[in-house]
Amino acid sequence: MSTSSPRENPRHRRRKDRSGREEVQQSQPIERQLPIYEILKKDQLELIHGKSLEILGEVGIDFYLEEARQILKEHGARIEGQTAFFTPQLIEKYRKRAPSQFTQLARNPRRNVTIGGDSVVFAPVYGPPFVYDRKHGRRDATLEDFQNFVKLAYLSPYIHHSGGTIVEPTDRPTETRHLDMLYSHIKYSDKPFMGAVMAREHAQDSVRMVEILFGKEAIRKDPALLSLINISSPRRLDDRMLEALTVYARNRQAVIITPFIMAGAMSPVSLAGTLIQQNAEALAGLVYAQMVQPGTPVVYGSFMTNVDLKSGAPVFGSPESQLALLASSQMAQYYDLPFRSGGMFASAKTSDAQSAYESVMTMLPAVLGRVNFVLHAAGWLENGLTAGYEKFLLDCEILGAFHTLESGIDFSEGSLAMESLKEVEPGGHHLGTQHTMERFNSAFYRSRLFDYTDIDTWVEGGSQTAEEAASHKVWELLENYQAPELDQDLDQTLVEYIRDRKEQIVTGE
Amino acid sequence: MSTSSPRENPRHRRRKDRSGREEVQQSQPIERQLPIYEILKKDQLELIHGKSLEILGEVGIDFYLEEARQILKEHGARIEGQTAFFTPQLIEKYRKRAPSQFTQLARNPRRNVTIGGDSVVFAPVYGPPFVYDRKHGRRDATLEDFQNFVKLAYLSPYIHHSGGTIVEPTDRPTETRHLDMLYSHIKYSDKPFMGAVMAREHAQDSVRMVEILFGKEAIRKDPALLSLINISSPRRLDDRMLEALTVYARNRQAVIITPFIMAGAMSPVSLAGTLIQQNAEALAGLVYAQMVQPGTPVVYGSFMTNVDLKSGAPVFGSPESQLALLASSQMAQYYDLPFRSGGMFASAKTSDAQSAYESVMTMLPAVLGRVNFVLHAAGWLENGLTAGYEKFLLDCEILGAFHTLESGIDFSEGSLAMESLKEVEPGGHHLGTQHTMERFNSAFYRSRLFDYTDIDTWVEGGSQTAEEAASHKVWELLENYQAPELDQDLDQTLVEYIRDRKEQIVTGE
Repeated sequence: MSTSSPRENPRHRRRKDRSGREEVQQSQPIERQLPIYEILKKDQLELIHGKSLEILGEVGIDFYLEEARQILKEHGARIEGQTAFFTPQLIEKYRKRAPSQFTQLARNPRRNVTIGGDSVVFAPVYGPPFVYDRKHGRRDATLEDFQNFVKLAYLSPYIHHSGGTIVEPTDRPTETRHLDMLYSHIKYSDKPFMGAVMAREHAQDSVRMVEILFGKEAIRKDPALLSLINISSPRRLDDRMLEALTVYARNRQAVIITPFIMAGAMSPVSLAGTLIQQNAEALAGLVYAQMVQPGTPVVYGSFMTNVDLKSGAPVFGSPESQLALLASSQMAQYYDLPFRSGGMFASAKTSDAQSAYESVMTMLPAVLGRVNFVLHAAGWLENGLTAGYEKFLLDCEILGAFHTLESGIDFSEGSLAMESLKEVEPGGHHLGTQHTMERFNSAFYRSRLFDYTDIDTWVEGGSQTAEEAASHKVWELLENYQAPELDQDLDQTLVEYIRDRKEQIVTGE
Repeated sequence: MSTSSPRENPRHRRRKDRSGREEVQQSQPIERQLPIYEILKKDQLELIHGKSLEILGEVGIDFYLEEARQILKEHGARIEGQTAFFTPQLIEKYRKRAPSQFTQLARNPRRNVTIGGDSVVFAPVYGPPFVYDRKHGRRDATLEDFQNFVKLAYLSPYIHHSGGTIVEPTDRPTETRHLDMLYSHIKYSDKPFMGAVMAREHAQDSVRMVEILFGKEAIRKDPALLSLINISSPRRLDDRMLEALTVYARNRQAVIITPFIMAGAMSPVSLAGTLIQQNAEALAGLVYAQMVQPGTPVVYGSFMTNVDLKSGAPVFGSPESQLALLASSQMAQYYDLPFRSGGMFASAKTSDAQSAYESVMTMLPAVLGRVNFVLHAAGWLENGLTAGYEKFLLDCEILGAFHTLESGIDFSEGSLAMESLKEVEPGGHHLGTQHTMERFNSAFYRSRLFDYTDIDTWVEGGSQTAEEAASHKVWELLENYQAPELDQDLDQTLVEYIRDRKEQIVTGE
């Protein structure tokens, strides 16, 4: 822990961009100063490692893409049908080629993020086909919703990354909506973002667009895309994910390899068995990426919760998912890889008490463990089917708190406050001491949305729940939103690229 | 971590009592199997210790009771006016006399609790003068409310302790309501409970009543009361708390010494300074108790959060309170004392998202740290001014999850599930495997109140928030409540004692 006061340094920056507009207040990604919470001993990590090698050697992992099986074969994996088998030596050889951390580029270089080490980066929810807000209810997500969430993520000081498919813009054609999403990330935010993964062409478009934005050389040095490759547990990588993974690895763009596991359905009900499976799957994806291109930045991903065995429904915020997360974090550490997990997960349908209990139950262990990248850090509702506008803002209040939590306790001489402790009389108060006055503005983290008024003031204000309070704030933020400056020539080039690609795709050329 | 499966042992017991009534399903207190999360290094603990000795020696602590100052003086403290000064040697001599753990008796011996070591005991909210439920709104608390909460705590499998002044029964006279509360704990629950602390006579009544219940000798061996002694920070113990503390220590009943601190008001805005103050105050209370009676069981208590410096209002669930809690936990460990902190604290007025975010933000660090006794583990709302019926039930769902979390990951041979991992085909599922079938009933923790249905079912059910769902459950539970058996003679003796004492108090004899 540092002996200088982290709170006396300006954590929030206010600058003007080239057009003179004031940049939005932003926090840097968390630099972890608290110790990592570890629950497994070394022999347990080795057990998981050893048993997953047994799985990789004896029953293997299915790769549903001929090209991928060819690459695996050329690099020494044994192929039988669609299944690849790996020896421990092969795993060892390739897994070590992945870097332990890397920088992802943002179009505003001050928003570049480190993925790995002590850095913790928060990104919005990913994937919901529906959105919910109090004003309009639950409905199909549109491109406007997508752009709204990009804007809200841009405006939040505690979201460091614009994410990927924040919501599915279901009002746009499936074949071309990835272009609309990528452009929206670039146009309405200046934070880093994720690439499209639904097909080879989508990944290729993602790479082309960041080549336009950053230049071909720059993105081979530091990746400009960090994309989500899910493994269809148990033990298979589907063709579309493999196509995207292959494109990204060839172009040295970063990928998160995440076995997507609901224990009890896609894996055994026991956590130890589930961890073994997850680890085997993650290693297979990791090693494949290194075979395509040594040094490809790979994040060890864990998305593991359990099903409700009575109904088969997923359960979020469960104690099993907490244990799985903490254990997975240590496996990533064991391999010296960046780790992705956590999220403000909820099974709840709206921003009620259940949604908040569930969210912190998953998110706090992630932050106290060794997470480096948190997808779904804000906005997740209804098992990930719905993105909540109010949920997004409320989650951000807690993300802000984590920044202060992770800065730890300042033990510098001044912080001991010995003079004040001796001066203030028994039963007196510290509100006006010099010590307090000097630290007044930066002393405590303050939520801007939570209610701290007394009961009368709260009743006079309409007895609002947190969701109601957040609802007002959502539309106020969106109304006052201003886009960050984007170079006009770059913008034009991107618009033309997208226009051409849409034409090609529609005409099938 | 154990290699046997904790989940294969029946955690819930269903027994019949002597009258043949079925006892309610109960969990034992948590036996911590996860490692303790520590954030401070040894030199930081020593710094806090050393600086608090400086406070105790140079500016001292005020004791607003002549009898207490006399005891302090006789045992070597220097007294000036109302202030006691302690040398490091004096602190060392007496602090070591407190036991590192103890057993608190319950009238049902199966509900005895260990306070200290790896045990984690949950007790209800303490102190609110108001109650809230959706059906009747916010209102003054009555004895009926008090009894309702005793019943709900008795019925919850995850609350191990009946607590103390769960709510203030404001419809009963101040002078005698402690008798009504003590009797209600005894009559409507068989879990351990707390003594009254508002005056010497209240503490004496508490001791007499447990003497009737357990016998005079039994309670000197193992305490039957665990009472809350708050220190009025900064640096003073008021007369009423000192009277109660003195009575309990004389009778070898356990006490929790808790400096009650809102940092920024009752202590410096800096956490290091606040920790020094808290530690000095706790040591003063601890040492005094040992002077009254060596070996008095004392719990090191921390109740520390911060004020909102803009409004002066308390803020719960803050990152500062999380850090303070984790650091305080290590101070208790440093002195080898049981530790009390945590709670499902909320500034929110109802069981909305804010209340749940705030609650888990405080409670999860307590459980991952080294907490032994958690007061306010369920029901707290509105900065502790209100006890929420729905909040109580919802909090209990999370307390249940902590039981599973703290049992850790089972790494026994069977839990590795290697056979299932090899048998289930890629893309297949584990729902019907032998491994799953054998563990089906005990595999995952299941909340009984949270909603895991799909959106259509949820809408058909009335689109209920968690608070609404809990509201129905509250009254259903209370309607079906059955009191645990109480020996008729004992009951009669207690009723007569209370009748006599009320007469004495009313007539002023």
